[in-house]
Amino acid sequence: MKPQRPILDWSNLRNWTNPAHQSIMAERLIIIGGVAAGMSAAAKARRMNPALEIVVYEKSGHISYGACGFPYFIKGDVTRLEDLIARTPAQMAAQGVMAHVCHEVMAIDPAQRTVRVMDHENGRLFTDHWDKLIITTGASVNRPPIPGANLPGVFTLRTVEDALAIQRWLVEEKPKHGVIVGAGYIGLEMAEALQAHGLAVTLVEMADQVLPGLDADMAALVQVELQAHGVQICLQQPVKSFVGPTLVREVVREVAAMVQGDGGENGRLRIHEVLTPGSILAADMVVFGVGGRPNVTLAQAAGIHLGQTGAIAVDEYQRTNLPNVWAAGAAAESKHLILNKPIYWPLAAPANKQGRVAGTNAAGGQAKSGMVAGTAVVKVFDLAVAVTGLTEKQAQAAGLNAASVTIEASSRAHYMPGQSPIHLKLVYEQETERVLGAQMVGKDGIAKRIDIIAAALHANWTIHELAELDLSYAPPFAPVWDPILVAANVAKKS
Amino acid sequence: MKPQRPILDWSNLRNWTNPAHQSIMAERLIIIGGVAAGMSAAAKARRMNPALEIVVYEKSGHISYGACGFPYFIKGDVTRLEDLIARTPAQMAAQGVMAHVCHEVMAIDPAQRTVRVMDHENGRLFTDHWDKLIITTGASVNRPPIPGANLPGVFTLRTVEDALAIQRWLVEEKPKHGVIVGAGYIGLEMAEALQAHGLAVTLVEMADQVLPGLDADMAALVQVELQAHGVQICLQQPVKSFVGPTLVREVVREVAAMVQGDGGENGRLRIHEVLTPGSILAADMVVFGVGGRPNVTLAQAAGIHLGQTGAIAVDEYQRTNLPNVWAAGAAAESKHLILNKPIYWPLAAPANKQGRVAGTNAAGGQAKSGMVAGTAVVKVFDLAVAVTGLTEKQAQAAGLNAASVTIEASSRAHYMPGQSPIHLKLVYEQETERVLGAQMVGKDGIAKRIDIIAAALHANWTIHELAELDLSYAPPFAPVWDPILVAANVAKKS
Repeated sequence: MKPQRPILDWSNLRNWTNPAHQSIMAERLIIIGGVAAGMSAAAKARRMNPALEIVVYEKSGHISYGACGFPYFIKGDVTRLEDLIARTPAQMAAQGVMAHVCHEVMAIDPAQRTVRVMDHENGRLFTDHWDKLIITTGASVNRPPIPGANLPGVFTLRTVEDALAIQRWLVEEKPKHGVIVGAGYIGLEMAEALQAHGLAVTLVEMADQVLPGLDADMAALVQVELQAHGVQICLQQPVKSFVGPTLVREVVREVAAMVQGDGGENGRLRIHEVLTPGSILAADMVVFGVGGRPNVTLAQAAGIHLGQTGAIAVDEYQRTNLPNVWAAGAAAESKHLILNKPIYWPLAAPANKQGRVAGTNAAGGQAKSGMVAGTAVVKVFDLAVAVTGLTEKQAQAAGLNAASVTIEASSRAHYMPGQSPIHLKLVYEQETERVLGAQMVGKDGIAKRIDIIAAALHANWTIHELAELDLSYAPPFAPVWDPILVAANVAKKS
Repeated sequence: MKPQRPILDWSNLRNWTNPAHQSIMAERLIIIGGVAAGMSAAAKARRMNPALEIVVYEKSGHISYGACGFPYFIKGDVTRLEDLIARTPAQMAAQGVMAHVCHEVMAIDPAQRTVRVMDHENGRLFTDHWDKLIITTGASVNRPPIPGANLPGVFTLRTVEDALAIQRWLVEEKPKHGVIVGAGYIGLEMAEALQAHGLAVTLVEMADQVLPGLDADMAALVQVELQAHGVQICLQQPVKSFVGPTLVREVVREVAAMVQGDGGENGRLRIHEVLTPGSILAADMVVFGVGGRPNVTLAQAAGIHLGQTGAIAVDEYQRTNLPNVWAAGAAAESKHLILNKPIYWPLAAPANKQGRVAGTNAAGGQAKSGMVAGTAVVKVFDLAVAVTGLTEKQAQAAGLNAASVTIEASSRAHYMPGQSPIHLKLVYEQETERVLGAQMVGKDGIAKRIDIIAAALHANWTIHELAELDLSYAPPFAPVWDPILVAANVAKKS
């Protein structure tokens, strides 16, 4: 059966004048998923190949949004959610990319080179043909199967709709007690966001430290910062259940409103209870920040191979095992620079880069993805917390004979206003003395300083080579011996 | 003649208990100059070799001071000059390093392994013996031979004494008009410092741009910042003379004080005039910031070779041509990473590193100096201005077929408070596409971001390798495409 072309609204294409586009012979690229990797792929493919037809199907109601900004929208640092949306479907159409929101791809047929698409707005199922296909289906956040996890007021945070729902709850329900489940990046950012709204925040974490991706000694510094800002921390506490008398809540609220003329503070106390082995926590709202999993069902059903991590296996060209099918972003694996093997690393910056590579290749160019060093940074109240490469724990788990030094040094010349301590842990391999990774915690000069060590990892340097770097110095910005050089020199002596 | 030992005050050595130190057989290291490179050498040699006798002779009245902090002391950001002094002679003595201030080495005798030392405090000339010698005589700042350049109120800035003299003039003379001669790093820092004291500041520069070490397009951004802060800029204006009726000034001031009961604003106007081809500038004080020259007379007289730059020639071990004689810091040459040849680069951070290498080697260890990438940063009011490697102009002057891209990008996610534009110029070689250098100007996230490109220079990367770096991202600290990656990607397309 010859695949049927969808009915497209070409009226949006007035600004799109390339005649090749109207040719029936033009190749057609379909991109499944229109957020970081997907839109990066679309934009790059568009620039690479003006003749290519490019169609994006996005399941949610928005494309091209900056999900990492949601905590700052919820907190109030960013006032307009529109500011988090880099490009609308109309803007993409003006560039000749047809991006359809609320369009869910239900199946991929690699033999016929088609996708079955559900248009949720119009309740219409149709088939579309592709010559090239890029899968950027992203990840879903985990909502663990805990009793009560679907109660109103229990949130995850991934989509525009999630961010709006949390904001609406804050405005309408005026919660007083927030519980964050999971002390990873999103959890810590949401702790700060909820506290900015005046909530008493409790952080519940299964592991024995916050930021389980860090070594315990560095995580301890972050824990001090959280506690200094009044965040309660419950470690080694898996959540057993949420108890939410929502029906009771409605009744109580109405009664309270009648009596007090407002939402009724007394009546609203402990709308939820969060039960862990060690405690019963009052909560007017709960946010899960317990990670995610790649959206691979669609790909898997089409015969696309997954890797060991459970995400889509890709090579350095972002190719899947199927011809003319690429994958990128949080649905796919990344390759780790130090471990030299695939990992699952669903962060925005690598997703954008991988999308760009997939877009280049699908458009007929040739690009290769670099490996990820595992670089990340998160703001935790006044602290920045950054990591690159392997932690000492991770290095040891990988069978490397890792050593480390931890130093405390000034972020600027010690006599300058605004200087504050940087805690830097440098991890290196004992025999070869090559740098394996670093962690930094401090209030000043953290985020881009970790990138210097990320560069050292890309260059496969030893601590000796790291110590030779000619780094910038002026009293307002760094001490004359940059903390990185101090750490490298201390490691040399160890 | 057996060299005579100086009379040392061993009473300071109560905390110094290593018995080897008291042996007459212990080797003796003399370091000429006790600031950045010298004290770095002394401290490292001390740690390396507890048996070594270490003596430092410093001509000025202070050792181990952070000269780069002087503009911030004068401005008032640093209130105590003592905070700029890392270690006093007493502290060094407690570590077993005898540091003598106001002791000027007048001659080196390499055959006898002696130095002739003038103790300016006691008017005593004596001879001291060395087994190892490190020359860290630093640089002198230029005071061009212009008529009037030695008038009171005309300053240079290098030593503690200079910084105090400028501060005293500000307090006692309450100048209203300041002229800075030279728009390099010191000149711009001093413009900001004087303005903080309420002076109307004019910057006079011979070249046709501020910061002549930058490309003109980047320097233009700095000029806008200076002008926005009310600094007058006179370019292509070599100073012809200073006219200072100092005698008249005293008379006028006394008369004015009698009449007005104060220093007499009317009478004090134009105490100096600064004459350039284009203008007559009123000035109550002048600061020179026109660079410096290495202090090499002493070394040269001892038969130590200078390099092409006029500074002491050293190899990667900081060795001079004489056995057992090392040199480091602003008296010596550095080797440039890209040009792969000696340059004169008298900055504090390389001086400290080179001193450490010289100290290691003099103490019997073995260390090599890395090359300098030419990394530097300076604060100019609200801007940070950073450079690494070669500018486009420098690359072309070196015969390289240099190309460049200049981008403007956000320092953080575009929607985040505190984000501001980063102007980034990336210079690379046309054929090989290797990175040659970069310049960055902006208010946020500049100093340590330039270091990422410094690392790229050390790694000898192409723009393609630079574009693959896994850099940290979180909305409060960087955009998802870091400006460095944006520049590298734009360069790839050029």
